[in-house]
Amino acid sequence: MYTYPKPLEKLITELSKLPGIGGKTAQRLAFHILSLRDDDAYALSAAVAGAKKDMKYCSVCGNLTDVDPCALCSDAGRDKSIICVVESPRDVAAIERMREYKGLYHVLHGAISPMDGIGPEDINLAQLIVRLRESDEVREVIVATNPNVEGEATAMYAARLIAPSGIKVSRIAHGVPVGGDLEYTDEITLAKAIGGRREIG
Amino acid sequence: MYTYPKPLEKLITELSKLPGIGGKTAQRLAFHILSLRDDDAYALSAAVAGAKKDMKYCSVCGNLTDVDPCALCSDAGRDKSIICVVESPRDVAAIERMREYKGLYHVLHGAISPMDGIGPEDINLAQLIVRLRESDEVREVIVATNPNVEGEATAMYAARLIAPSGIKVSRIAHGVPVGGDLEYTDEITLAKAIGGRREIG
Repeated sequence: MYTYPKPLEKLITELSKLPGIGGKTAQRLAFHILSLRDDDAYALSAAVAGAKKDMKYCSVCGNLTDVDPCALCSDAGRDKSIICVVESPRDVAAIERMREYKGLYHVLHGAISPMDGIGPEDINLAQLIVRLRESDEVREVIVATNPNVEGEATAMYAARLIAPSGIKVSRIAHGVPVGGDLEYTDEITLAKAIGGRREIG
Repeated sequence: MYTYPKPLEKLITELSKLPGIGGKTAQRLAFHILSLRDDDAYALSAAVAGAKKDMKYCSVCGNLTDVDPCALCSDAGRDKSIICVVESPRDVAAIERMREYKGLYHVLHGAISPMDGIGPEDINLAQLIVRLRESDEVREVIVATNPNVEGEATAMYAARLIAPSGIKVSRIAHGVPVGGDLEYTDEITLAKAIGGRREIG
């Protein structure tokens, strides 16, 4: 049976390993890449290798960075008294996009999940405790792990771990998302939204 | 405002240039690539560069290949008396997938499209004429360009160009696709299907 020439076959195979890219899409992308000008194709190739080569984790907060410590950790304008704990570098980007939080971060690279065999020692938690012990500036740790079972478990565990230091630990609020619809909100979220109600006016 | 570190930003930019890959998908893919083992990420990078470097067009038929002439042109088992003319290497792959056609191919790399400023001299047609002139084996040329305005125009043009050589020129049949639904077939296709009817039984 006719198969594509090796280099093309190889490209299709590698592309189809990417999440959400099936065989057909991989073929379409591969042909597109072949149709690019040399420069553009090599730029893509170099970007893949370059990102993998030059990106590392910040030795302080664990965020993805090309310089160590990362731009956020070494930014003198950030409020060093507050650390926001998140599961992934993508969460850092999400929080930064809202342009309101001015503190530091700590990236766990995962959440505690016994089902998947991920325990507290498998995520970047120990480094957080070291960090809190070595700094006398931190006043509050906001745990912004995901609002799911693993995220909650991680938040509880982190809170207990930090408690002895006397540093305040808070959890991001659960509630009805802005623009959401009460009618379609699940019971647990609704219960949390009512439980977390605030006085107004 | 916080932006991703340069190498990551660059990767997202390059990925989002691919067809059907928007900003969000590019971010997801970029983070996935960063999470790969070094080997796997470099394999992807090498596959992109390698495909671009090693793939060329067959000097005989114009198909994508890593050796020249391509595997199909140099296959002694193929029927050299018949050439199937297609618009793109993807069409070759499609026809090969049905495992019935045993002749050779000729890839035009496009179709005549005055609207897009693509004339007969912009596609790989002249080479087809040279090929027909130099071979005394070819008995038939099947024009399998796409069944749209550009494909039809190209087929007509090719047929007129080949006519003086006395070689038979045929066009793939238009009709109702197998598994299709008469009710939802457009009028032109239906007219072609009826016009091209064959006696059975």
